[in-house]
Amino acid sequence: MKLHWSPRSPFVRKVMIAAHELGLQDRFERVRTVVAMTTPNPALLPDNPLSKIPTLVLDDGQCLYDSLTICEYLDDLAGGHILFPAERAARWRVLTWHALGNGLLDILILWRNERDKPEQRRTPEWLAAFALKTERSLDQMEALAADLHSAPFGIGHIAIGCCLSYLDFRFGQLDWRAGRPGLVAWHDGFRARPSAIATEVVDG
Amino acid sequence: MKLHWSPRSPFVRKVMIAAHELGLQDRFERVRTVVAMTTPNPALLPDNPLSKIPTLVLDDGQCLYDSLTICEYLDDLAGGHILFPAERAARWRVLTWHALGNGLLDILILWRNERDKPEQRRTPEWLAAFALKTERSLDQMEALAADLHSAPFGIGHIAIGCCLSYLDFRFGQLDWRAGRPGLVAWHDGFRARPSAIATEVVDG
Repeated sequence: MKLHWSPRSPFVRKVMIAAHELGLQDRFERVRTVVAMTTPNPALLPDNPLSKIPTLVLDDGQCLYDSLTICEYLDDLAGGHILFPAERAARWRVLTWHALGNGLLDILILWRNERDKPEQRRTPEWLAAFALKTERSLDQMEALAADLHSAPFGIGHIAIGCCLSYLDFRFGQLDWRAGRPGLVAWHDGFRARPSAIATEVVDG
Repeated sequence: MKLHWSPRSPFVRKVMIAAHELGLQDRFERVRTVVAMTTPNPALLPDNPLSKIPTLVLDDGQCLYDSLTICEYLDDLAGGHILFPAERAARWRVLTWHALGNGLLDILILWRNERDKPEQRRTPEWLAAFALKTERSLDQMEALAADLHSAPFGIGHIAIGCCLSYLDFRFGQLDWRAGRPGLVAWHDGFRARPSAIATEVVDG
Protein backbone atom coordinates (compact mmCIF):
# COMPACT_ATOMS: atom_id res chain seq x y z
CA MET A 1 0.00 0.00 0.00
CA LYS A 2 1.08 3.57 -0.67
CA LEU A 3 -0.07 6.60 1.30
CA HIS A 4 0.00 10.11 -0.14
CA TRP A 5 1.40 11.80 2.90
CA SER A 6 2.73 15.08 4.25
CA PRO A 7 4.15 15.63 7.74
CA ARG A 8 2.10 18.75 8.51
CA SER A 9 -1.37 17.80 7.28
CA PRO A 10 -3.67 17.22 10.26
CA PHE A 11 -5.84 14.93 8.13
CA VAL A 12 -2.82 12.78 7.25
CA ARG A 13 -1.90 12.77 10.92
CA LYS A 14 -5.28 11.24 11.78
CA VAL A 15 -4.43 8.28 9.54
CA MET A 16 -0.90 7.99 10.92
CA ILE A 17 -2.15 8.01 14.52
CA ALA A 18 -4.75 5.38 13.64
CA ALA A 19 -2.04 3.27 11.98
CA HIS A 20 0.21 3.51 15.06
CA GLU A 21 -2.66 2.69 17.42
CA LEU A 22 -3.45 -0.37 15.27
CA GLY A 23 0.18 -1.46 14.82
CA LEU A 24 -0.02 -0.97 11.05
CA GLN A 25 2.41 1.93 10.63
CA ASP A 26 4.90 -0.23 8.73
CA ARG A 27 2.35 -1.72 6.38
CA PHE A 28 2.40 1.11 3.85
CA GLU A 29 4.92 3.21 2.02
CA ARG A 30 4.63 6.94 2.62
CA VAL A 31 4.97 9.13 -0.46
CA ARG A 32 5.46 12.80 0.27
CA THR A 33 2.74 14.64 -1.63
CA VAL A 34 2.47 18.38 -1.25
CA VAL A 35 -0.93 20.01 -1.73
CA ALA A 36 -2.34 23.44 -1.07
CA MET A 37 -5.73 24.98 -1.69
CA THR A 38 -4.42 26.99 -4.64
CA THR A 39 -2.08 24.39 -6.12
CA PRO A 40 -3.56 21.02 -7.09
CA ASN A 41 -0.79 18.42 -7.33
CA PRO A 42 -0.63 16.79 -10.80
CA ALA A 43 0.98 13.66 -9.34
CA LEU A 44 -1.98 13.18 -6.99
CA LEU A 45 -4.88 13.96 -9.35
CA PRO A 46 -4.96 10.50 -11.03
CA ASP A 47 -5.37 8.89 -7.59
CA ASN A 48 -7.63 11.57 -6.11
CA PRO A 49 -9.13 14.21 -8.43
CA LEU A 50 -9.94 16.39 -5.40
CA SER A 51 -6.14 16.69 -4.85
CA LYS A 52 -6.53 15.97 -1.16
CA ILE A 53 -4.34 14.05 1.23
CA PRO A 54 -4.39 11.50 2.74
CA THR A 55 -5.12 9.19 -0.19
CA LEU A 56 -4.33 5.49 0.17
CA VAL A 57 -3.46 3.42 -2.93
CA LEU A 58 -3.94 -0.31 -2.40
CA ASP A 59 -1.69 -2.88 -4.06
CA ASP A 60 -4.33 -3.60 -6.70
CA GLY A 61 -4.47 0.10 -7.60
CA GLN A 62 -7.74 0.90 -5.84
CA CYS A 63 -7.62 4.35 -4.24
CA LEU A 64 -9.28 5.09 -0.90
CA TYR A 65 -10.14 8.48 0.57
CA ASP A 66 -11.01 10.56 2.64
CA SER A 67 -9.20 10.18 5.99
CA LEU A 68 -12.26 8.68 7.70
CA THR A 69 -12.60 6.00 5.02
CA ILE A 70 -8.90 5.17 5.29
CA CYS A 71 -9.04 4.99 9.09
CA GLU A 72 -11.99 2.62 9.01
CA TYR A 73 -10.23 0.50 6.37
CA LEU A 74 -7.15 0.25 8.59
CA ASP A 75 -9.29 -0.54 11.63
CA ASP A 76 -10.88 -3.37 9.70
CA LEU A 77 -7.48 -4.63 8.54
CA ALA A 78 -6.42 -4.84 12.18
CA GLY A 79 -9.44 -6.94 13.13
CA GLY A 80 -12.21 -4.36 13.24
CA HIS A 81 -14.06 -2.37 15.89
CA ILE A 82 -10.93 -1.12 17.61
CA LEU A 83 -11.14 2.60 16.86
CA PHE A 84 -14.75 2.36 15.64
CA PRO A 85 -17.18 0.97 18.26
CA ALA A 86 -19.30 -2.02 17.29
CA GLU A 87 -22.13 -1.03 19.62
CA ARG A 88 -24.49 1.20 17.67
CA ALA A 89 -25.19 4.07 20.13
CA ALA A 90 -21.46 4.37 20.81
CA ARG A 91 -20.79 4.43 17.09
CA TRP A 92 -23.03 7.45 16.40
CA ARG A 93 -21.56 9.29 19.36
CA VAL A 94 -18.00 8.64 18.23
CA LEU A 95 -18.72 9.51 14.59
CA THR A 96 -20.25 12.81 15.74
CA TRP A 97 -17.14 13.53 17.84
CA HIS A 98 -15.15 12.81 14.70
CA ALA A 99 -17.34 15.18 12.67
CA LEU A 100 -16.82 17.86 15.31
CA GLY A 101 -13.02 17.59 15.32
CA ASN A 102 -12.80 17.15 11.57
CA GLY A 103 -15.30 19.92 10.85
CA LEU A 104 -13.38 22.33 13.07
CA LEU A 105 -10.20 21.37 11.20
CA ASP A 106 -11.94 22.26 7.92
CA ILE A 107 -12.84 25.65 9.39
CA LEU A 108 -9.30 26.23 10.65
CA ILE A 109 -7.79 25.47 7.24
CA LEU A 110 -10.15 27.99 5.64
CA TRP A 111 -9.50 30.51 8.39
CA ARG A 112 -5.74 30.23 7.89
CA ASN A 113 -6.10 30.66 4.13
CA GLU A 114 -8.29 33.73 4.66
CA ARG A 115 -6.14 35.33 7.35
CA ASP A 116 -2.95 34.94 5.28
CA LYS A 117 -4.38 36.79 2.27
CA PRO A 118 -3.41 40.37 1.46
CA GLU A 119 -5.68 42.54 3.60
CA GLN A 120 -7.75 43.97 0.77
CA ARG A 121 -8.79 40.47 -0.25
CA ARG A 122 -9.91 39.32 3.19
CA THR A 123 -13.61 39.11 4.01
CA PRO A 124 -14.11 40.33 7.60
CA GLU A 125 -17.46 38.54 7.97
CA TRP A 126 -15.77 35.23 7.16
CA LEU A 127 -13.06 35.77 9.73
CA ALA A 128 -15.69 36.62 12.35
CA ALA A 129 -17.73 33.52 11.48
CA PHE A 130 -14.65 31.27 11.69
CA ALA A 131 -13.77 32.73 15.09
CA LEU A 132 -17.28 32.22 16.48
CA LYS A 133 -17.59 28.64 15.22
CA THR A 134 -14.16 27.83 16.63
CA GLU A 135 -15.01 29.19 20.09
CA ARG A 136 -18.35 27.38 20.17
CA SER A 137 -16.76 24.12 18.99
CA LEU A 138 -14.06 24.36 21.67
CA ASP A 139 -16.73 25.00 24.31
CA GLN A 140 -18.55 21.90 23.11
CA MET A 141 -15.32 19.87 23.34
CA GLU A 142 -14.80 21.15 26.89
CA ALA A 143 -18.34 19.97 27.71
CA LEU A 144 -17.39 16.56 26.28
CA ALA A 145 -14.10 16.26 28.19
CA ALA A 146 -15.37 13.83 30.84
CA ASP A 147 -16.83 11.58 28.12
CA LEU A 148 -13.59 11.75 26.13
CA HIS A 149 -11.75 10.61 29.26
CA SER A 150 -14.04 7.68 29.97
CA ALA A 151 -14.71 6.35 26.46
CA PRO A 152 -12.32 3.86 24.82
CA PHE A 153 -9.81 5.71 22.61
CA GLY A 154 -11.15 5.87 19.07
CA ILE A 155 -11.61 7.82 15.86
CA GLY A 156 -13.44 10.65 17.67
CA HIS A 157 -10.51 11.17 20.02
CA ILE A 158 -8.10 11.14 17.09
CA ALA A 159 -9.99 13.87 15.21
CA ILE A 160 -10.41 16.10 18.28
CA GLY A 161 -6.82 15.56 19.40
CA CYS A 162 -5.40 16.35 15.95
CA CYS A 163 -7.60 19.45 15.83
CA LEU A 164 -6.34 20.77 19.19
CA SER A 165 -2.73 20.06 18.24
CA TYR A 166 -3.29 21.89 14.95
CA LEU A 167 -4.51 24.89 16.95
CA ASP A 168 -1.22 24.79 18.87
CA PHE A 169 0.70 24.56 15.58
CA ARG A 170 -1.05 27.24 13.52
CA PHE A 171 -3.19 29.28 15.93
CA GLY A 172 -0.92 29.71 18.94
CA GLN A 173 -2.23 33.22 19.56
CA LEU A 174 -5.78 31.92 20.03
CA ASP A 175 -5.12 30.50 23.53
CA TRP A 176 -7.70 27.73 23.20
CA ARG A 177 -6.77 26.46 26.67
CA ALA A 178 -8.13 29.50 28.53
CA GLY A 179 -11.17 28.49 30.60
CA ARG A 180 -11.14 24.90 29.36
CA PRO A 181 -9.37 22.86 32.05
CA GLY A 182 -11.09 19.58 31.25
CA LEU A 183 -10.10 19.73 27.61
CA VAL A 184 -6.53 20.71 28.50
CA ALA A 185 -6.19 17.70 30.80
CA TRP A 186 -7.62 15.40 28.16
CA HIS A 187 -5.33 16.80 25.45
CA ASP A 188 -2.30 16.35 27.70
CA GLY A 189 -3.14 12.67 27.86
CA PHE A 190 -3.63 12.53 24.09
CA ARG A 191 -0.26 14.17 23.47
CA ALA A 192 1.47 11.63 25.70
CA ARG A 193 0.30 8.63 23.69
CA PRO A 194 3.07 6.92 21.69
CA SER A 195 0.96 7.29 18.54
CA ALA A 196 0.75 11.07 19.04
CA ILE A 197 4.45 11.40 19.90
CA ALA A 198 5.45 9.41 16.81
CA THR A 199 3.41 11.68 14.55
CA GLU A 200 4.02 15.03 16.17
CA VAL A 201 4.20 17.95 13.79
CA VAL A 202 7.54 19.69 13.80
CA ASP A 203 7.76 23.20 12.43
CA GLY A 204 10.64 24.16 10.22
CA MET B 1 -36.41 13.19 15.99
CA LYS B 2 -35.84 16.67 14.65
CA LEU B 3 -33.77 17.50 11.56
CA HIS B 4 -32.21 20.92 11.05
CA TRP B 5 -33.13 21.25 7.42
CA SER B 6 -33.12 23.60 4.47
CA PRO B 7 -34.59 22.86 1.03
CA ARG B 8 -31.54 23.98 -0.95
CA SER B 9 -28.67 22.44 0.98
CA PRO B 10 -27.18 19.56 -1.02
CA PHE B 11 -25.93 17.99 2.23
CA VAL B 12 -29.44 18.04 3.70
CA ARG B 13 -30.70 16.58 0.44
CA LYS B 14 -28.39 13.58 0.88
CA VAL B 15 -30.12 12.82 4.18
CA MET B 16 -33.60 13.36 2.74
CA ILE B 17 -32.88 11.06 -0.21
CA ALA B 18 -31.52 8.43 2.18
CA ALA B 19 -34.65 8.79 4.34
CA HIS B 20 -36.94 8.36 1.33
CA GLU B 21 -34.99 5.35 0.06
CA LEU B 22 -35.28 3.79 3.52
CA GLY B 23 -38.96 4.70 4.03
CA LEU B 24 -38.13 6.88 7.03
CA GLN B 25 -39.04 10.30 5.65
CA ASP B 26 -41.99 10.66 8.05
CA ARG B 27 -40.01 9.64 11.13
CA PHE B 28 -38.58 13.09 11.86
CA GLU B 29 -39.76 16.64 12.07
CA ARG B 30 -38.01 19.04 9.71
CA VAL B 31 -37.05 22.40 11.20
CA ARG B 32 -36.06 25.02 8.68
CA THR B 33 -32.61 26.24 9.71
CA VAL B 34 -30.87 28.76 7.52
CA VAL B 35 -27.08 28.82 7.52
CA ALA B 36 -24.46 30.50 5.38
CA MET B 37 -20.69 30.57 5.53
CA THR B 38 -20.67 34.11 6.90
CA THR B 39 -23.69 33.86 9.18
CA PRO B 40 -23.66 31.19 11.90
CA ASN B 41 -27.20 30.51 13.09
CA PRO B 42 -27.61 31.10 16.87
CA ALA B 43 -30.54 28.65 16.99
CA LEU B 44 -28.34 25.88 15.58
CA LEU B 45 -25.13 26.45 17.56
CA PRO B 46 -26.28 24.64 20.73
CA ASP B 47 -27.01 21.52 18.65
CA ASN B 48 -24.02 21.86 16.31
CA PRO B 49 -21.29 24.40 17.14
CA LEU B 50 -20.02 24.19 13.55
CA SER B 51 -23.38 25.71 12.49
CA LYS B 52 -23.76 23.16 9.73
CA ILE B 53 -26.81 21.41 8.38
CA PRO B 54 -28.01 18.70 8.38
CA THR B 55 -27.97 18.12 12.15
CA LEU B 56 -30.26 15.46 13.61
CA VAL B 57 -31.53 15.82 17.19
CA LEU B 58 -32.70 12.53 18.68
CA ASP B 59 -35.60 12.35 21.12
CA ASP B 60 -33.21 12.03 24.06
CA GLY B 61 -31.44 15.24 22.99
CA GLN B 62 -28.37 13.60 21.46
CA CYS B 63 -27.23 15.45 18.33
CA LEU B 64 -25.84 13.65 15.31
CA TYR B 65 -23.84 15.12 12.43
CA ASP B 66 -22.44 15.28 9.74
CA SER B 67 -24.62 14.08 6.83
CA LEU B 68 -22.67 10.81 6.50
CA THR B 69 -23.17 9.97 10.17
CA ILE B 70 -26.89 10.76 9.92
CA CYS B 71 -27.28 8.65 6.77
CA GLU B 72 -25.60 5.66 8.39
CA TYR B 73 -27.75 6.11 11.51
CA LEU B 74 -30.91 6.09 9.38
CA ASP B 75 -29.66 3.08 7.41
CA ASP B 76 -29.16 1.23 10.70
CA LEU B 77 -32.61 2.28 11.90
CA ALA B 78 -34.09 0.72 8.76
CA GLY B 79 -32.36 -2.59 9.37
CA GLY B 80 -28.79 -1.86 8.30
CA HIS B 81 -26.62 -2.45 5.23
CA ILE B 82 -29.14 -1.07 2.78
CA LEU B 83 -27.31 2.05 1.58
CA PHE B 84 -23.99 0.97 3.17
CA PRO B 85 -22.70 -2.40 1.92
CA ALA B 86 -21.92 -5.07 4.51
CA GLU B 87 -19.22 -6.65 2.36
CA ARG B 88 -15.93 -4.94 3.17
CA ALA B 89 -14.40 -4.33 -0.28
CA ALA B 90 -17.73 -2.91 -1.46
CA ARG B 91 -17.86 -0.69 1.63
CA TRP B 92 -14.51 1.00 0.95
CA ARG B 93 -15.41 1.52 -2.67
CA VAL B 94 -18.77 3.08 -1.80
CA LEU B 95 -17.32 5.28 0.96
CA THR B 96 -14.72 6.56 -1.51
CA TRP B 97 -17.48 7.34 -4.03
CA HIS B 98 -19.19 9.21 -1.22
CA ALA B 99 -16.00 11.12 -0.42
CA LEU B 100 -15.66 12.04 -4.10
CA GLY B 101 -19.20 13.40 -4.41
CA ASN B 102 -19.15 15.05 -1.00
CA GLY B 103 -15.66 16.47 -1.50
CA LEU B 104 -16.64 17.97 -4.82
CA LEU B 105 -19.70 19.51 -3.14
CA ASP B 106 -17.36 21.11 -0.57
CA ILE B 107 -15.32 22.57 -3.42
CA LEU B 108 -18.42 23.85 -5.23
CA ILE B 109 -19.69 25.61 -2.09
CA LEU B 110 -16.32 27.35 -1.70
CA TRP B 111 -16.19 28.13 -5.41
CA ARG B 112 -19.64 29.74 -5.30
CA ASN B 113 -18.67 31.82 -2.24
CA GLU B 114 -15.50 32.97 -3.99
CA ARG B 115 -17.10 33.70 -7.34
CA ASP B 116 -19.88 35.78 -5.77
CA LYS B 117 -17.46 38.12 -3.96
CA PRO B 118 -16.76 41.64 -5.19
CA GLU B 119 -14.08 41.26 -7.86
CA GLN B 120 -11.28 42.91 -5.91
CA ARG B 121 -11.66 40.32 -3.14
CA ARG B 122 -11.55 37.26 -5.38
CA THR B 123 -8.40 35.16 -5.52
CA PRO B 124 -7.87 34.06 -9.16
CA GLU B 125 -5.63 31.12 -8.17
CA TRP B 126 -8.44 29.72 -6.00
CA LEU B 127 -10.97 29.98 -8.81
CA ALA B 128 -8.55 28.20 -11.15
CA ALA B 129 -7.90 25.44 -8.60
CA PHE B 130 -11.63 24.92 -8.01
CA ALA B 131 -12.22 24.68 -11.77
CA LEU B 132 -9.43 22.14 -12.29
CA LYS B 133 -10.49 19.92 -9.36
CA THR B 134 -14.09 20.02 -10.57
CA GLU B 135 -13.16 18.97 -14.12
CA ARG B 136 -10.92 16.15 -12.86
CA SER B 137 -13.56 14.94 -10.41
CA LEU B 138 -16.22 14.90 -13.13
CA ASP B 139 -13.85 12.95 -15.41
CA GLN B 140 -13.36 10.45 -12.60
CA MET B 141 -17.14 10.15 -12.16
CA GLU B 142 -17.50 9.53 -15.90
CA ALA B 143 -14.89 6.75 -15.59
CA LEU B 144 -17.00 5.28 -12.76
CA ALA B 145 -20.32 5.47 -14.63
CA ALA B 146 -20.49 1.76 -15.53
CA ASP B 147 -19.78 0.81 -11.90
CA LEU B 148 -22.39 3.29 -10.66
CA HIS B 149 -24.90 1.62 -12.97
CA SER B 150 -24.13 -1.92 -11.84
CA ALA B 151 -23.67 -1.43 -8.08
CA PRO B 152 -26.67 -1.49 -5.71
CA PHE B 153 -27.90 2.06 -5.06
CA GLY B 154 -26.19 3.41 -1.94
CA ILE B 155 -24.60 6.32 -0.14
CA GLY B 156 -21.99 6.78 -2.87
CA HIS B 157 -24.68 7.21 -5.51
CA ILE B 158 -26.53 9.66 -3.27
CA ALA B 159 -23.47 11.90 -2.82
CA ILE B 160 -22.53 11.87 -6.51
CA GLY B 161 -26.13 12.37 -7.62
CA CYS B 162 -26.67 15.31 -5.25
CA CYS B 163 -23.39 16.80 -6.43
CA LEU B 164 -24.37 16.63 -10.12
CA SER B 165 -27.82 18.07 -9.39
CA TYR B 166 -26.16 20.88 -7.41
CA LEU B 167 -24.05 21.64 -10.50
CA ASP B 168 -27.28 21.97 -12.47
CA PHE B 169 -28.73 24.25 -9.77
CA ARG B 170 -25.78 26.59 -9.16
CA PHE B 171 -23.29 26.03 -11.99
CA GLY B 172 -25.53 25.78 -15.05
CA GLN B 173 -22.96 27.57 -17.20
CA LEU B 174 -20.35 24.87 -16.52
CA ASP B 175 -21.95 22.31 -18.88
CA TRP B 176 -20.72 19.30 -16.89
CA ARG B 177 -22.52 16.98 -19.34
CA ALA B 178 -20.24 17.79 -22.30
CA GLY B 179 -18.16 14.74 -23.19
CA ARG B 180 -19.52 12.64 -20.33
CA PRO B 181 -22.30 10.49 -21.83
CA GLY B 182 -22.00 7.69 -19.27
CA LEU B 183 -22.41 10.05 -16.35
CA VAL B 184 -25.32 11.83 -18.02
CA ALA B 185 -27.15 8.52 -18.53
CA TRP B 186 -26.51 7.51 -14.93
CA HIS B 187 -27.66 10.90 -13.60
CA ASP B 188 -30.86 10.67 -15.67
CA GLY B 189 -31.64 7.44 -13.83
CA PHE B 190 -30.81 9.05 -10.50
CA ARG B 191 -33.09 12.00 -11.18
CA ALA B 192 -35.97 9.68 -12.03
CA ARG B 193 -35.92 7.91 -8.65
CA PRO B 194 -38.90 8.79 -6.41
CA SER B 195 -36.46 9.79 -3.65
CA ALA B 196 -34.79 12.29 -5.96
CA ILE B 197 -38.07 13.65 -7.30
CA ALA B 198 -39.43 14.12 -3.76
CA THR B 199 -36.37 16.14 -2.73
CA GLU B 200 -35.73 18.10 -5.89
CA VAL B 201 -34.38 21.58 -5.33
CA VAL B 202 -36.66 24.27 -6.65
CA ASP B 203 -35.23 27.70 -7.26
CA GLY B 204 -37.18 30.73 -6.23
